Amino acid sequence: MIKRKSLEEYKRGVLDGNRVVLSQAITLVESNLESDSELAGKLVQELLPHSGKSIRIGITGVPGVGKSTFIEAFGSLLLEKGKKVAVLAVDPSSQKTKGSILGDKTRMEKLALDKRAFIRPSPSGSTLGGVSAKTREAMLICEAAGFDVILVETVGVGQSEVAVKGMVDFFLLLMLAGAGDELQGIKKGIMEMADTLLIHKADGDNLPAAKRAKSTYSNALHLFPLGENSWAPKVLVGSSQTGDGLSEVWEAIQVFQDQMIRSGWFEKNRADQRLTWLHESVHAILGKLFYTHPEVKIMLQKGEIEVQKGIKSPMTFARELTKLFFS
Amino acid sequence: MIKRKSLEEYKRGVLDGNRVVLSQAITLVESNLESDSELAGKLVQELLPHSGKSIRIGITGVPGVGKSTFIEAFGSLLLEKGKKVAVLAVDPSSQKTKGSILGDKTRMEKLALDKRAFIRPSPSGSTLGGVSAKTREAMLICEAAGFDVILVETVGVGQSEVAVKGMVDFFLLLMLAGAGDELQGIKKGIMEMADTLLIHKADGDNLPAAKRAKSTYSNALHLFPLGENSWAPKVLVGSSQTGDGLSEVWEAIQVFQDQMIRSGWFEKNRADQRLTWLHESVHAILGKLFYTHPEVKIMLQKGEIEVQKGIKSPMTFARELTKLFFS
Repeated sequence: MIKRKSLEEYKRGVLDGNRVVLSQAITLVESNLESDSELAGKLVQELLPHSGKSIRIGITGVPGVGKSTFIEAFGSLLLEKGKKVAVLAVDPSSQKTKGSILGDKTRMEKLALDKRAFIRPSPSGSTLGGVSAKTREAMLICEAAGFDVILVETVGVGQSEVAVKGMVDFFLLLMLAGAGDELQGIKKGIMEMADTLLIHKADGDNLPAAKRAKSTYSNALHLFPLGENSWAPKVLVGSSQTGDGLSEVWEAIQVFQDQMIRSGWFEKNRADQRLTWLHESVHAILGKLFYTHPEVKIMLQKGEIEVQKGIKSPMTFARELTKLFFS
Repeated sequence: MIKRKSLEEYKRGVLDGNRVVLSQAITLVESNLESDSELAGKLVQELLPHSGKSIRIGITGVPGVGKSTFIEAFGSLLLEKGKKVAVLAVDPSSQKTKGSILGDKTRMEKLALDKRAFIRPSPSGSTLGGVSAKTREAMLICEAAGFDVILVETVGVGQSEVAVKGMVDFFLLLMLAGAGDELQGIKKGIMEMADTLLIHKADGDNLPAAKRAKSTYSNALHLFPLGENSWAPKVLVGSSQTGDGLSEVWEAIQVFQDQMIRSGWFEKNRADQRLTWLHESVHAILGKLFYTHPEVKIMLQKGEIEVQKGIKSPMTFARELTKLFFS
């Protein structure tokens, strides 16, 4: 039995901005222990009225694009502007690679040492759904602790971008210029999700190529439909080495936020995200019970290959499985 | 009690290519009656080994882009080439508008009268999931009846594109050239889903603008990442009035199919789609039972608004609801 604080102790500590308690509170919501889930649920519920007063920024890009150095430089800039910055991560692969992103805090030395910043590596969790649910709750807790900018990092190569897009207000895609690098490893569909595209490492010899990439992408993005919020994605260039262009990223985010608050989309989007979160949670719970049901598991294992091969009807097999589940 | 045929009668009729029985078989799988679902499931299972030998083509585009005239002209071209063509639709709105697409067969006079073609309007069904599941089964039945090209039409303004993308081999987006029309009404994300983009109504005065649009979009699409199948989307121009460019669409589809069969992606994609269909069906069945549960419904109705407003924790509420469901 792990020693836990009382609900009141967690709540008081988080609201006081106590970093040790904040960490422990996030550990509590990240816990996979059944015995923790009730307390965790109550804590999130208690902190909910104190959450929401931040701008939530998703940051993605393929490995090598410089996400960690960007977050270090951009986060430091925000601290100078008087912001309190929390950095979270969604990376369902991190359990295998033992923290492929944010695991190495030394890459964010300045941020890690600063009391106005808080860095939390990706939680371990067996499924993307589990990881992203925990990240959402960690985000709310950080907000209750007074952090007013939440940066959520993810790797631009998989499904986790969709999950992050669903929990943030603004989505930033980092890219590299030149020689086909722009496309290297980025997953189809992610470009159209971005609210702003930053051509990163735009310094030294890279600068001319970065500027060309900026104009090429600006032209191309005009051909793509706008989202529901009518925001036309921006293309910017920047360097985390020189610091050039980072202020422009923050300006773009502020312009975005202003416009979205005025149009009502900001609050509408968050309300939609909360509702989606509810239904995703229901699905996740039902799915977990279903797929861990011993007899269902055996039947599924046997039939899945036949479904893949087109021998068994997916719909009919689904009916058989659910009948078994409820019997 | 509706009079139904026997399993053997449906099966024999479909495999013989009897159009009346084919229609009745599709009506059976589209039925919302619990009493039909067992027979429908058996029929699909029996026909499964005879299905799959077609190319499945999704066609989308906003209202006004000329989907019906395209399908009429393109379908007629395929008949001339000796193909048997079935046209299906996924349109979750059709129940309200009484068949907004394909409802009016008179717009496809030639196809509707030809024995080598089969046109089926969108089934009525309360949810997109329901509609798309029925369309998948209708597709399999048409294949078993000997149709070797399946055209699945959808409107380019909503979620149904994702559903159609998930059931076809090839996805075609119809667009218009000029004056911002390109973007009018298309939903974000759909451009990146397309395997080929056809600038439609490229005739008369429209032709120069269509050709310009072709080159602009070709350039832009190069900047976007390729999908898992490494297919570089084509941009074509065409007119269903003059017939120009329609052969090129068919050629592109054939080149695509050849490449994908050789790379192994064609069969892999279908295997993935079948597995996804299985898990979507499980989710749909669990979801239906959950959301129609009387006590859950009442609790959900009360709490949903509090979740949207950020007063109630989505995760905690989901736990409460599922606890009630299983109690």
